[in-house]
Amino acid sequence: MAHRAELIAVGTEILLGNIANTDAQMLSEKLAELGVDVLYHTVVGDNPGRLRAALELARTRVDVIITTGGLGPTYDDLTKQTICETFGRKNVLHPELEAWLREWFAQRGRTMTENNLRQAYLPENCTIFHNHNGTAPGCAFCEGGVHVLMLPGPPHECSLMFETGAADYLRALSHDVIASHTLRIYGKGESEVEMLLHDRIAAMTNPTVAPYAKPDECMLRVTAKAASREEAERLLGPAVDEVMGVVGEWVYGVDVDNLESVCVAALKARGATLSAAESCTGGLIAKRITDVPGASAVFLGGVVSYTNGVKAHVINVPEALLDEFGAVSEPVARAMAEGVRAVTGSDYALAVTGLAGPDGDDRGNPVGLVYVALASPDGTVVRECRFGRRTREHIRQQAANTALDMLRRKLQ
Amino acid sequence: MAHRAELIAVGTEILLGNIANTDAQMLSEKLAELGVDVLYHTVVGDNPGRLRAALELARTRVDVIITTGGLGPTYDDLTKQTICETFGRKNVLHPELEAWLREWFAQRGRTMTENNLRQAYLPENCTIFHNHNGTAPGCAFCEGGVHVLMLPGPPHECSLMFETGAADYLRALSHDVIASHTLRIYGKGESEVEMLLHDRIAAMTNPTVAPYAKPDECMLRVTAKAASREEAERLLGPAVDEVMGVVGEWVYGVDVDNLESVCVAALKARGATLSAAESCTGGLIAKRITDVPGASAVFLGGVVSYTNGVKAHVINVPEALLDEFGAVSEPVARAMAEGVRAVTGSDYALAVTGLAGPDGDDRGNPVGLVYVALASPDGTVVRECRFGRRTREHIRQQAANTALDMLRRKLQ
Repeated sequence: MAHRAELIAVGTEILLGNIANTDAQMLSEKLAELGVDVLYHTVVGDNPGRLRAALELARTRVDVIITTGGLGPTYDDLTKQTICETFGRKNVLHPELEAWLREWFAQRGRTMTENNLRQAYLPENCTIFHNHNGTAPGCAFCEGGVHVLMLPGPPHECSLMFETGAADYLRALSHDVIASHTLRIYGKGESEVEMLLHDRIAAMTNPTVAPYAKPDECMLRVTAKAASREEAERLLGPAVDEVMGVVGEWVYGVDVDNLESVCVAALKARGATLSAAESCTGGLIAKRITDVPGASAVFLGGVVSYTNGVKAHVINVPEALLDEFGAVSEPVARAMAEGVRAVTGSDYALAVTGLAGPDGDDRGNPVGLVYVALASPDGTVVRECRFGRRTREHIRQQAANTALDMLRRKLQ
Repeated sequence: MAHRAELIAVGTEILLGNIANTDAQMLSEKLAELGVDVLYHTVVGDNPGRLRAALELARTRVDVIITTGGLGPTYDDLTKQTICETFGRKNVLHPELEAWLREWFAQRGRTMTENNLRQAYLPENCTIFHNHNGTAPGCAFCEGGVHVLMLPGPPHECSLMFETGAADYLRALSHDVIASHTLRIYGKGESEVEMLLHDRIAAMTNPTVAPYAKPDECMLRVTAKAASREEAERLLGPAVDEVMGVVGEWVYGVDVDNLESVCVAALKARGATLSAAESCTGGLIAKRITDVPGASAVFLGGVVSYTNGVKAHVINVPEALLDEFGAVSEPVARAMAEGVRAVTGSDYALAVTGLAGPDGDDRGNPVGLVYVALASPDGTVVRECRFGRRTREHIRQQAANTALDMLRRKLQ
């Protein structure tokens, strides 16, 4: 039977709304991949009585408890001390952790204060999880059939410790190996994708297919459980093919990060270069392309032409076009793409001009009207998009997504 | 005594890690402002038994229960039905909601299916909260001294319904009015700010001061409780002045959205214009400035000069400078700012050149070295920044923040 988990976050800062409980989302997604069912998320403040009550309740209803937060030196060991009391374990000094901590501070030329030594204390007879992004170690132990895992709160510490320690601990609880592939989709919403695949999803048991909504796009995760990784991969192949047969037209990549990383990789593979001219997206396309490490090998540069003057003088959009058709028009989008391609000497060029709102323009064009152009050695194509009266942020992201999707379709 | 609240989110998609429980953060922050203590966040799946148990537990430990999610037509009324059973209320048709729903669908030319009618059912004798962003209404009632509020799950529906309905319901539970001002800080971390204000924060009871960490910056919220808004504002004035006396140097605005909106407002107030030339930030400054509605009144445009060719030919950075000092240098940052200012004809111009990583350059410059320049009618200033070996994302955001902070200090 699958293990059943509860995530308990300890932190008054979450209850004050200072930060979101993103650890819970990250852990839930990873636990689903490991085949662990998450039944509850709980958040309590830095309060030993309430944490104790939450732990006592959790041990009656799940067999895996994962706590996040409350391990650092400033928290008075709240989580550790309370867990030790609840599960009847001693909180003891682990000499190898003390040595590691002293080394950590010595290497950085910093003095280790006494409260830092508290981080070397963990429950007796536990599996230690090392912290590669901070000083508070985590751990796991099993008491009365219930596995208790303690992870740090800061997301980059929690996430790395899960990957490098907790995931293996949980995998060892099961004889099965879980493997998955993620299909990333642009141009079809989660509900449409689910509808297209509904009968197949319902009929599948191993592998399984689950749709996930992400901002402005969606993804499908195909997951298989088997006795070995090889066997799991053998199961995944035909399932991925089956899904691709239905929604492949909108899948821009499998096990990839995002549209921009797919574009950068495809440009690199061709030895081709890119530039961008942006009006309503205001630099968003350039920003997203240059978010990708190594983008400098393919991205030559861009122009944010927020005024007709910049359009005319920097990327040579003919003023006659601006006068006749207005800045938000098919001919101007085309001239922007071709202009920035000529000025930078790139192989490909994207251009966007449109109305992100809140106001329309003096030609009566509606908010949400956007022209996206792609200039290439084969010529220039322009797409007219109507994103409707949504938020400025939504219209800008959709315009950038459309541009990047046009480019990746051209390159793939 | 302050009311004590538990937030119960209903949604398997949260337990699967599909989405983060951002409603809980949003509500916690707003409840803190209203003086309601949030003691627990709980998440359960679309499972009536577990939701019922969570509600039974919550009614024993808090006097305000706020549920989010599970109100829409596809959820089989999970939340409503379970709440009605738990608190012994009938789930009844509210004719005014039925009329509103029929009108909603008619106006959009859509057929209202029978399951949509379920949204017109709410517990008898409740306060209805209208949904201005969707079709599922929410509500509140009091049973046995416990207030139960039901809000929809989609964040934009939940947030607006809180503002337009739930907040007033909760305010009416207290005789006091809560008012607050938020001081936004750049250039000092949360822990440094807390240390500078520690004794004052500890000594204050009404108003209170609380520091909040935000990505790459922090903020202080000063909150007062009084019999009227006027009285609360009278209390806030001297407290804000006292805090400003200590950390005012780093406060870029009170009750403002972010650095970029402060810059756009300051430019508008002066009738001045801005342009930007970006190398390592790759369009991030332009993107952030144009995130602000109405930015087109002050932002003329920008150039993303990711290569020496674009630096030389589009914004006229002398090739001799690029050869002698390299692209990441004080003279090139200066020439980029002055070049984009000349090309666009703007009053002010920002320029950034640096190494965001993961690799250094062939001159041996380290990752994290960034030059930020501000050109203005008074001349050009350049700041050398060393952001250290952090993530690409962090270095880019800090470079953009530094540029925007230099501009707002110049303008204010």
